[in-house]
This record gives sequence, structure tokens and C-alpha cells, in this order.
Amino acid sequence: MNKPLVLCDPHPRRIDLIFRDEDKRRLESIARVIWQEAEHASAENIERYLADTVALIGQTPMPKERLDRAPNLRAIFNVEGNFLPNIDYQECHRRNIHVLSCAPAFAPAVAEMALGLALAAARGIVTGDAAMRAGKELYGGASNQENHLFRGKPMGLLGCGNVGRALLPLLRGFGGEILVHDPWLHPRVLSDMGTTPVSIDVLLQRSRILFILAAATAENQGALGRKEFNAMQRGAVVVLVSRATVVDFEALLDAAAAGHIRAAIDVFPQEPLPPDHRARKTPNVILSAHRAGGLPETYHEVGRMVVDDLELILKGLRPQRMQCADIETVGRLRSKPVVQ
Amino acid sequence: MNKPLVLCDPHPRRIDLIFRDEDKRRLESIARVIWQEAEHASAENIERYLADTVALIGQTPMPKERLDRAPNLRAIFNVEGNFLPNIDYQECHRRNIHVLSCAPAFAPAVAEMALGLALAAARGIVTGDAAMRAGKELYGGASNQENHLFRGKPMGLLGCGNVGRALLPLLRGFGGEILVHDPWLHPRVLSDMGTTPVSIDVLLQRSRILFILAAATAENQGALGRKEFNAMQRGAVVVLVSRATVVDFEALLDAAAAGHIRAAIDVFPQEPLPPDHRARKTPNVILSAHRAGGLPETYHEVGRMVVDDLELILKGLRPQRMQCADIETVGRLRSKPVVQ
Amino acid sequence: MNKPLVLCDPHPRRIDLIFRDEDKRRLESIARVIWQEAEHASAENIERYLADTVALIGQTPMPKERLDRAPNLRAIFNVEGNFLPNIDYQECHRRNIHVLSCAPAFAPAVAEMALGLALAAARGIVTGDAAMRAGKELYGGASNQENHLFRGKPMGLLGCGNVGRALLPLLRGFGGEILVHDPWLHPRVLSDMGTTPVSIDVLLQRSRILFILAAATAENQGALGRKEFNAMQRGAVVVLVSRATVVDFEALLDAAAAGHIRAAIDVFPQEPLPPDHRARKTPNVILSAHRAGGLPETYHEVGRMVVDDLELILKGLRPQRMQCADIETVGRLRSKPVVQ
Amino acid sequence: MNKPLVLCDPHPRRIDLIFRDEDKRRLESIARVIWQEAEHASAENIERYLADTVALIGQTPMPKERLDRAPNLRAIFNVEGNFLPNIDYQECHRRNIHVLSCAPAFAPAVAEMALGLALAAARGIVTGDAAMRAGKELYGGASNQENHLFRGKPMGLLGCGNVGRALLPLLRGFGGEILVHDPWLHPRVLSDMGTTPVSIDVLLQRSRILFILAAATAENQGALGRKEFNAMQRGAVVVLVSRATVVDFEALLDAAAAGHIRAAIDVFPQEPLPPDHRARKTPNVILSAHRAGGLPETYHEVGRMVVDDLELILKGLRPQRMQCADIETVGRLRSKPVVQ
Repeated sequence: MNKPLVLCDPHPRRIDLIFRDEDKRRLESIARVIWQEAEHASAENIERYLADTVALIGQTPMPKERLDRAPNLRAIFNVEGNFLPNIDYQECHRRNIHVLSCAPAFAPAVAEMALGLALAAARGIVTGDAAMRAGKELYGGASNQENHLFRGKPMGLLGCGNVGRALLPLLRGFGGEILVHDPWLHPRVLSDMGTTPVSIDVLLQRSRILFILAAATAENQGALGRKEFNAMQRGAVVVLVSRATVVDFEALLDAAAAGHIRAAIDVFPQEPLPPDHRARKTPNVILSAHRAGGLPETYHEVGRMVVDDLELILKGLRPQRMQCADIETVGRLRSKPVVQ
Repeated sequence: MNKPLVLCDPHPRRIDLIFRDEDKRRLESIARVIWQEAEHASAENIERYLADTVALIGQTPMPKERLDRAPNLRAIFNVEGNFLPNIDYQECHRRNIHVLSCAPAFAPAVAEMALGLALAAARGIVTGDAAMRAGKELYGGASNQENHLFRGKPMGLLGCGNVGRALLPLLRGFGGEILVHDPWLHPRVLSDMGTTPVSIDVLLQRSRILFILAAATAENQGALGRKEFNAMQRGAVVVLVSRATVVDFEALLDAAAAGHIRAAIDVFPQEPLPPDHRARKTPNVILSAHRAGGLPETYHEVGRMVVDDLELILKGLRPQRMQCADIETVGRLRSKPVVQ
Repeated sequence: MNKPLVLCDPHPRRIDLIFRDEDKRRLESIARVIWQEAEHASAENIERYLADTVALIGQTPMPKERLDRAPNLRAIFNVEGNFLPNIDYQECHRRNIHVLSCAPAFAPAVAEMALGLALAAARGIVTGDAAMRAGKELYGGASNQENHLFRGKPMGLLGCGNVGRALLPLLRGFGGEILVHDPWLHPRVLSDMGTTPVSIDVLLQRSRILFILAAATAENQGALGRKEFNAMQRGAVVVLVSRATVVDFEALLDAAAAGHIRAAIDVFPQEPLPPDHRARKTPNVILSAHRAGGLPETYHEVGRMVVDDLELILKGLRPQRMQCADIETVGRLRSKPVVQ
Repeated sequence: MNKPLVLCDPHPRRIDLIFRDEDKRRLESIARVIWQEAEHASAENIERYLADTVALIGQTPMPKERLDRAPNLRAIFNVEGNFLPNIDYQECHRRNIHVLSCAPAFAPAVAEMALGLALAAARGIVTGDAAMRAGKELYGGASNQENHLFRGKPMGLLGCGNVGRALLPLLRGFGGEILVHDPWLHPRVLSDMGTTPVSIDVLLQRSRILFILAAATAENQGALGRKEFNAMQRGAVVVLVSRATVVDFEALLDAAAAGHIRAAIDVFPQEPLPPDHRARKTPNVILSAHRAGGLPETYHEVGRMVVDDLELILKGLRPQRMQCADIETVGRLRSKPVVQ
């Protein structure tokens, strides 16, 4: 019997970045794989295989016309992490083609980084190290006048998708109430997770640490601006690890520069950040160059998830490891493609 | 009825550092307090009140001769955190005088800092910030070649006293096995806590992150040296937050300088660290000036614990908030007094 | 603007059983509701409203022909709990009509009952009470020769759907390994839940307590028979709360009668159980008349979930409280309709 | 070198009940053991060994006069579980003789039984089984009109010692607030455990399930009477597993007989319970013949704890597995010796 055909077109991800040898072997044991790398598969190459392709690995454009020519297609594995507008999601749904994102592979790494950034900001870890290297350190309590514990403090999450769910178990041990604002989740779903669903106003006022985890959507561009940061408690920590467009970036830097909040920022309105961007000199900010999610083991998890889910699909089960496109909301997402 | 007399001699802690107004009021509502500050209570002053003193707040020397002159003494509250050798612990035990340390007040802060330092080291948070400020940052995966997740990885604790117990709930959410070596705790006590008791060798070999939390004792001076750091996995993270004498400090810096481990160090063989100490220039190290425990809210917790436990003692109950001196081991401790 | 039309045809559930007044009010505030009770809606009634119906509450037959006449239909809320074969699930999927089951509303109640039955069986709670009422009790250890603790013991779950997920948090505190066999779930999904995915053989051999939670499917009729019960440890506890067809019922009773296992049974091959059925006299068995899930507050939760999810759908979000029919596997389910 | 002498006088516990072969071997490898069984060691036998005895296993009377003749004694291991008034606890403390109770060995078993009894009472497991055996069962919801879920409901603990601490992790998964009233524990200690410290009035009014876990003390005889049970919510579940003297037993039975509460009772004012005691016929009660703690594996844990702690003591460490007598409160306990 012929193995099903899988077209692997992962650009800009490299094949070896995401597939370890063992996952490649697993994949080739269940499928005939057309490996494509270096650049996007050419239209010609795609057309050559489309009629037989059972699964597509990559963020290849798939408008309705192409779907019409892919009668055997059962799954599209986005290995970049964002659902881009180059796929006809409704048509895929109608044809029962699973459109899947590898975003969950990155969530644990982003969650751990978010917690690390939050603690670093709350405890002055970056400035404390710099002070010692400069021979200007203060010892003990003298250096901690403005620092605070997480224990028992309200923590806030703006958005509770993949990253939020990975972050929750890391926050439990601190014993504080966990407030969540997520307009796409039912309050009861949030309370069943052991969190307190709140309005954006309550989130801002009560959170000692605010994790901004919301995906970029049509509705939330610049949702956190001057007014919102002002509404936060003095000394609150703001950790931005999802998408920069969710905040008014200048307002965020102003609030940090003024000493009203402390910020830790992993994503920027423009990447690479321009060399002379003021963020590079803003105090009370920890800067991180979009490094939260992309670790060697995270990328390998992407490949592992793809093969796991393909195995399930070929067995007649639903995919379970990656995130299924939600056709109700996928059209409202506003992510840009990654560079790497 | 006369209120019991309490002699408050907290030097080098300041009264206002540890007692908020509300705790002072609570204290004065149950006791007649002789407040002493600025320096240690003079021998003269101590002798004046000794016969009537029911509780002593501070690390005042209390040899047997003084205890003989303090027939009403029921508790000594050490508000510094170390059990110093200036008290006759055996004699206190015989007389049922509780000797109590405020160390548990610092434990949550040290535990949070330890986790923050560990994440900062594992994810390059300090160097990542410096790179962006210098305009030399790498984005995404390129910057993370050597970094790793905590999720599911074995974590090790050398010592599981106050700080270890405060750290455990913070580590649970990462889902890895928690290895503990503590020669003073029964293995079954450790396994009942949900940890795996191991030898020091196994601890070093298996831990991806090693938290050094052991108190300084007669037996463990320089216990972790060249051989021990070499036995660790390449890229392992070592967090030193208890006492510097537990490690061979030069060996620790060598292992970090060589890139074999990453270290985060909050305590030093000499404090303040000499201006030209090599640690200040060692790479792969995060430096922190003995800042893990002393936060404003931590010091306040000291005062609150003192009053809580005094209330219990005056009600005929055992103290429950502070740590009771363990007469089996107190003589083996080798802590030095704090400076502040 | 016209409110959307909702056809409520919940038979055999009564309206007042599932909808509290406040949920009725919520429902009527967002929809024009056609309430139908006492018996199934007549074909005539259904046809009258079909063209305008936006949501159907009930397990009304919906073959393709009816779907063709329901162009506005967006959701079917099954309030019985089983996905019956009277709906064209594929066609619903194609039309993006959500088909939803209230099964999750029952899961917490079934999970609590399962744990209660397991403890009752392991500790002889039912027989211990009977002995005291008969004046034949043994005190203390003498009565516990065959009883055992759960603490630290391996527990097994056959099936890990709604009930399994509700049961897991209740089992965590016992500290034992939780083994799961579920052929429809990826092993990594199970390990991410903190369980150990195992084969059915390992499940039977290692579990001190086995919870049978699997839905009835085309593949698992009588899956646990004489051989399987014999493979279990002597004295193991078997709790059957999902569907009786998963086991060879006679073999289960034989294993209990022989004293090889202890059983607790909430579901039977025939309900009501015939008056002279041998189960009624079998020792080492606790009997429960399909009572695990149906509590007043559980039924109310059904109504609340329906309104919650309808609200979400009308806002353009996906339903989140009820269980979506999984078109990959819905055709393999073999549940029978409930009687009540 | 001579091994230290250990006098083993465990009556009424039998040696083989508590010591498995491996623990006997461990014990004999570190000590010369004088084994005494069948009845209490005679005064003559005790005097013969007293001068050399390093540890005494058993609840042998040890007044000051005997302690005076036991200069080498370092530990007394009570293997019954109650601190009886036949020991001079103050004098033991002064001499640094550890007086230890095996009560913690029973706590996990009592906690599991308490939860099992609570679920059995809340869900009618005992009466449900009886109904099926009598052919009078009601199916599904019809049988559950008065039953309720634990999920999310406030649960109360009267007393939070060994059993309470073992019970807490078993209750967490239900997600409800856990209220505790314990006059011997500081409220902050209770809140650090994740519970809510409350007055007895609040405990009674808010708890849907009340676990009575308090030791019998001079102060709490009959503390829960008619007034207290009346203050509880209708349908609340009361589980009595510590000591019967804590309640007014007739009032408890009356409240159950009237249908105001449901009770599960493991301890009685008189044991064995007189054959014609009304409790045997009282409805809405589950009866258990003091069976909560004494399982084969529990008794073995007693022996294991004894050897574990003796090993620690001989190494110069404090005992950690058994419960140390608290000289502040030991004199207020009012337990009676066990019969077995």
C-alpha cells in the first residue's frame, strides 16, 4: 500500500530546526515526504503534488482554488505559530481539513521566561548585577527599598490562551489570587481554571504583576495606553511577551521612565528594534530581543507535535497536540509572519 | 495585674525596620516593653531588668550566669536570623525557655529570589538586556542556543530547611523531579514532601538547576569544590543563596568562567566584596549583593512573627511562627552575625 | 431587531429539571424560545419553526433533510449527555453547526461518586455499617485485615474523558502514580496531564484501584472479561461508573464473588436491574442504581451551560462549556438513550 | 562497642503487629533489644534494665522516680498513639528525653476514611446499596433529591493536627474553601496552610461538610451539642473520627434522626458500643466501629517510624517521623488508652 504523501514546506523554519532525526524517521515511516527547504515551495512544486497531498507541513498559501485541487488534503500544519490570512479557513473547515498551529510548543518557554522577567523586574536582578560589576552595590535591605514579594499578591493575566495556561501552574505556588481578563473566554471557564475573571479595569487596578499575553487581534490594537498604565499601582510590574501591538508602546515606556511601573519587554513594534530607539535607554525596563519562545528544545517540540498529530489523524482520531484554528475567531487575528 | 516585661534589644536590626505601628501596639497591649536601640543593650541595662524579663527580643548574649538571674524568662526571640553561639541553648532548653529565630520570615523572599536568579541564568535575562542596551542583540532562537527550559527537568536542592520548604511550591509547577540532599533530614520526611532524597553525588549529576540552600555547619565548609562542580552537567545552573562558606568560592567562579556551569550568587565569602574581587568580572555569573531576603515586607514579617509567638506563649501554647532552636544541631551551626 | 429563535425540545429531560428561573430568564433575554415539553416535539412543530431556528435544545433527530430546511441553525444542544446516532454529524460540521453535549455537567458528580465508591469498597464502609446495625461489628484492626490505604498506591483509569479529567484532581492528593489507558488520547497528552499512559495489560496488573470510565464504543464491548479481572491484583478495587457494556458483567460479578476483587457498580446491562438478578446478592460488591451523575445541582448545571454557550455563539465565539461532537469518533459511540 | 539497650514494652500492641521483619532487623542492627510482650513489662523487669536503657518502646509508666534511675534514657516511643498521663513530661523535657507518639502513622488512614465516610454520607452510598439489595432502588435523579456535590462547597475542620494535615491534600481537589477552627494553632499558621481560620460559629454555619478531628482535651468535652448542630445547614454532613467526647453524642444522634444533618461516626462514648444503643438504629447515620486508623500497613508504619527516629537520635539528630510531646499542651489531653 502506498504511504500517504506529505508536503513539507516549512520556510522560514528550517527542517533541522524542528525535526530531530527520530521525528524525521517517525514521519518517514508513516508518510512519503516531499522535503522542501531554503525557500517557500514554488507554485510549480506545490501544484505537482497537490492532488495527492494528505498533509501539508508549513504555512503555504492555501486559497480555495488550491483546496479545490487538493481533494485528499486532511491537515495543514502551521509550524510558524501564527495563523496567517493566507488560508481559507472556512473552506478547510467545510472539508474537514485540520488547520493546526504549533503555538502550544512555544507556550512553556514563553511562560517560564515571563515568570523569570517578572521576578527579575520585581527584585532588581538586572540592575543588581550591573551595580556589583560597577562596584556600586548596596547590600541587603538597603538595595530593596522598592522591591516586593510575589507571595500572596494578586497577579493579572491579559489573555489566557496557550501561554496563560502554561503560566498558571507556575504562578500557583505564590499563593496569590490570579486575575484574568480575556474577552474570548467564558468567565466560568476561567473560574474553573482556578482564576478570577475580571474586567480590564479591575485587572489593571489590582494586579501587582501584569502579564500581557493577548494575541494581536482586530480589536485590541494599542488597548493598553497611557490611561491604563496610570490606573495601575505604583511599582507594579508589567511583562509584555505576546505582541507589541497590544500596547501603546510609547505610553509603556513613559510609565516605566517615570518610575510608575517596572516593565519587562520581549516584543517590539518593530524588530529588529531601530538602533537609536529610546527603549534601549529607558530605565526601569528589562529588554529581551523576542527570545521568550525560541529555544532549541522548543523547536524540536514543534516537529514532535507535527508527527504526533499526523499519526493521530492517520489513525482516524482528531489531532490533540497542536492548536486547531478556531474558525469563529481566526479571522480576527492580526499576527505578522515571523522573520526567522 | 502587671503586664509581663519584655526587653527589646534588637541591634543590629532597628525597631522600626521590624515593627510596624500595628505590631508595636499589639506588643504593648500584652507587655511592658523596654525599648532599646541604636546599639546593643548595655550590661547594666540588661541586669536592671533581667530578674523580671519574660521575653527578650534580640540576640543579646545569654550565658548560663545570666539565665540564672532570669527566673521568669520564657522566650528569646532572635530577630537577626542566625542562631549565634552566645546563648546557652542547652540551659535554655532545660528551663523551657523557647529560643526562636526569625529565619522563616526571610524564607519566602529568598525562595522567590532563588527562582528568579535561576530563570535569569537559564535564559540569559541579564546578558540579553545588556545586549539590547548595547545594540548588539540577537533575535529569537539565535540568542538561545545554550538556553534551556526548566519544564520537566530534574532540579536539585542542597539543604531543605526554611528556604527549601518555601521554594518547593514554587518549583512544583515546572513538573520536574525535585532531588534533595540534606543530611539532617530523614529520607522519608523528604519523600513525604514530594521530593526524592538523594546522595550528594546523584544531586550533582542529575540536577539541571542546583539550589544551594544549606546553612553553614561545622561539617559542610567548602563542601562543593572543583570535583563537585566538574561532576555537574555542562550548562547546569547553580544558585547560591544560603551561605558562601558551603562552596569553594574560587572553584565555583572557575567552573562558571570556563563555561561549564552558569552561576547566580547572592552571598560572598567576604561582604562587602572587595572592589577588585575577580567575581565582579567573571562571565556566566549573575551577582547579587546579599539581597535575597531583606525586603521591607520581610522585615515587617519578623516583627509580626515575634508578636504572634509571644501571644501564643503568654496563652500557654507553644510558639508556632518562628523557628525553634534545635538543641541537637544548634551547636553545629557556623553562621556569622549579619552586618545590618 | 428580532431575537433569534430557539427551539427547546429537551425530552426526556424536563425543562424545570435543567433550567432554573434565572437561566430561563437569561435564555429569554437573548432568544425567542419555543418551549416544548412532556414529549418529543412533533414533526409538525419542528417543521413549523425549522426555517428560523438558530439553536435547538434537545436531542431531536436531525438528519440531512431536516438540516437542509434549517439554514439558520447554528447549534444543537444535546441535554441528555450521549451523542445519539439520530443526527448527521458530518453535515452539521460542514455547515458549522455546533453539536454539543451536556456530558461535562455530570462529570464532577460522577467523579466524586467514583471516589466515594472506591473508598467505600477499599475500607468496607457499607459492610462495616451493616455489621454495627446487626450488632456484629469488630473493632479497630480486627475489622481491617483485608483493607488498604490509597496513599501512594497506583490508581488506574480506563478512559480519560470528561469524568477522568474531573477525577484526576481528586486523586492527586493520594500521592500515587495515576495510570491511564485511553486509545483515543495521545500518550503525550496523558503525560502532560500528570498521568502515566499505559497499555491495558499494565493498567490491570498495576492498579490497586481501577476506575472504568470509558464510553461505550464499537470497539470496547465487553473489553474487560474473565482474563482481565484475573490479571488484576487480589483485593484490587474496581469501580464501574461509565457504561456496563464495557465489561463482561458476569465475569465482573464472578471475580467479586470469588473474593478476587472488590467492585462498586453504578451502571448495569439492563436498567432497572431485574429483581432477581444475581448482582443483588453478590458479596464484595457495592451497588448503586445509576445514581452517580444525576444530582439536582448537576441538572441545573446543564441548563446553565446551554445558556452560557448560546451566549458565546451569538457573540461570534465558539462554545466552551459543553462538549463538542468530535466528528472523527462520534460515529463509533454506542450509547443508548437515557430513560429519564 | 556495646550497642545501646532498647526496652520494647509495647503492650497492648503486639510486636508483630507493628514491626515487620525488616524493621526488627534494622532495630537489632543498631540496638540490643529486650523484647517484652503479652502483657506490660513487670516492674521488676523494668528496674533490671532501667539504668542502661537508652530508649523505651511502649507506654510504660515513667514517673520522675523512674526517670531518676534511667540516666541514659534518651527517648520514649509511645506506640499506642495517645499521650497518657503516666509519664512526667516536664521532667523528660528537662532531661532532653524525647517523648514521641506514633499518632502520625494513623493519620493518612483516618483521613482517607474520613473522606470516604463523608462522600458515602453525602451521596447515600450505604442506603443506596441497601435499596438495591432489597429490590427497592430508585434510579438516577429520583434517588438524589437530597444529595449534593462537594465541589466548590465550604468544608470545615474542627481541629487541624495530624489527621487534619493528612486530610487537607485530599480535600484540595474539590476546590472549595477549607475552614478550620483550632484554638491551639495560630490563624496565620492555618492561612499559610491554605485554609481559612474561623470561629466555631462560622465553622458551623458555613461548612457543608464538617470533619471533627479534635483531640479530646480538658476544654472541649461535649463542645458540640444541640445548639451547635442546630446552627449547621440542613443536610450538612458531620464526620466524627477523632474522639467521641468532643460531641454531645445524644445531640448528634438527635440531629441526624431529625434529618437535620447526616452523620458518619467512627468513635463512640463507649466501645464496644452497647448492643442496644440507639445509635445502631438511628437513620441518616453511617456507623463504623473505630476502624478509621488501624490497617495492617498503618501498624507497620508505626514500627518503621520508631526505627527511623531511633536511628536519627543515635546519630545526634532530632526525631522527625513521630510526634513530639508538646509540653505546653500535653497536660490538657484527655485520651483514654486503646483497648487493643
